[in-house]
Amino acid sequence: MKTKIKPVVFNPIGVIYSPFKDMEGMPIQPVGAKGIKGEIHLKKEYMEGLSDLEGFSHIILIYHFHLSKGYLLKVKPFLDNMKRGIFATRAPRRPNSIGLSVINLDKIEGNIIHISNVDIVNGTPLLDIKPYMPYFDKFDDEKLKIGWFEDKYKEVINKKSDMRFLQ
Amino acid sequence: MKTKIKPVVFNPIGVIYSPFKDMEGMPIQPVGAKGIKGEIHLKKEYMEGLSDLEGFSHIILIYHFHLSKGYLLKVKPFLDNMKRGIFATRAPRRPNSIGLSVINLDKIEGNIIHISNVDIVNGTPLLDIKPYMPYFDKFDDEKLKIGWFEDKYKEVINKKSDMRFLQ
Repeated sequence: MKTKIKPVVFNPIGVIYSPFKDMEGMPIQPVGAKGIKGEIHLKKEYMEGLSDLEGFSHIILIYHFHLSKGYLLKVKPFLDNMKRGIFATRAPRRPNSIGLSVINLDKIEGNIIHISNVDIVNGTPLLDIKPYMPYFDKFDDEKLKIGWFEDKYKEVINKKSDMRFLQ
Repeated sequence: MKTKIKPVVFNPIGVIYSPFKDMEGMPIQPVGAKGIKGEIHLKKEYMEGLSDLEGFSHIILIYHFHLSKGYLLKVKPFLDNMKRGIFATRAPRRPNSIGLSVINLDKIEGNIIHISNVDIVNGTPLLDIKPYMPYFDKFDDEKLKIGWFEDKYKEVINKKSDMRFLQ
């Protein structure tokens, strides 16, 4: 069961623009970012890959937390006062600083994708766009266990980010 | 609105093991992989980051489609007979070959994570683990539009992968 693990290089496919110039005061998830508009500027060479995407109301953005420096194995999440394992959180300061948000797709014009409910910092390099498909990405509540997050999730709407993961 | 786009290098945090030695005959999504067991072998240096993860029933795996060669901007998805823009599909042959699956977490033993409903090829390099949080990742059906996928999604349980994205 040995596999050689080689580094993987990704070239961003575009850039995400938003009103948030850094993490201070930014909503920590799309549910807390209702109405916040943003734009994705896709590299023109990939434009053809956007065909058929406009039929989807929600898209998954995978991006680089480019402001995050280094990583921590235990972090105090925005929603908790205890340190938690980094893989049990959505905090940015991860071994691979990959971000994931499911956001609203409003409209596509050429290589510009208009999005809303954006919880992403301005200038973020975008790595991939996938359609949100409930049949793959959604699970019945009664089957879900959500660990430490159980009592916290109602706070996420009002919680704002701060600079804790940059220091 | 110009941002310099630099390549991003990620070092896999571990390897995903499964019964699927290649894509031929593999389920195309976790919903079609009920009961299929697998293991994640996390690099030991990251083990502390798994604290608190066992409370979650579902985890999001972000991985490298390491068998995928090059990319196409339009592909015929497993579930359709028409070509669709790559970003409107979950097909592996993407500009950045990043895979995403929400799978079941069964048990953690040291640096080994036992998982089930695995739709991932054996030996896949793992880039990140995030907890699945319904409040962030789940949306009401009545608000969702799912484009070309609307009439297809019931077929996904029985559909198996083939080698089309490797040729």
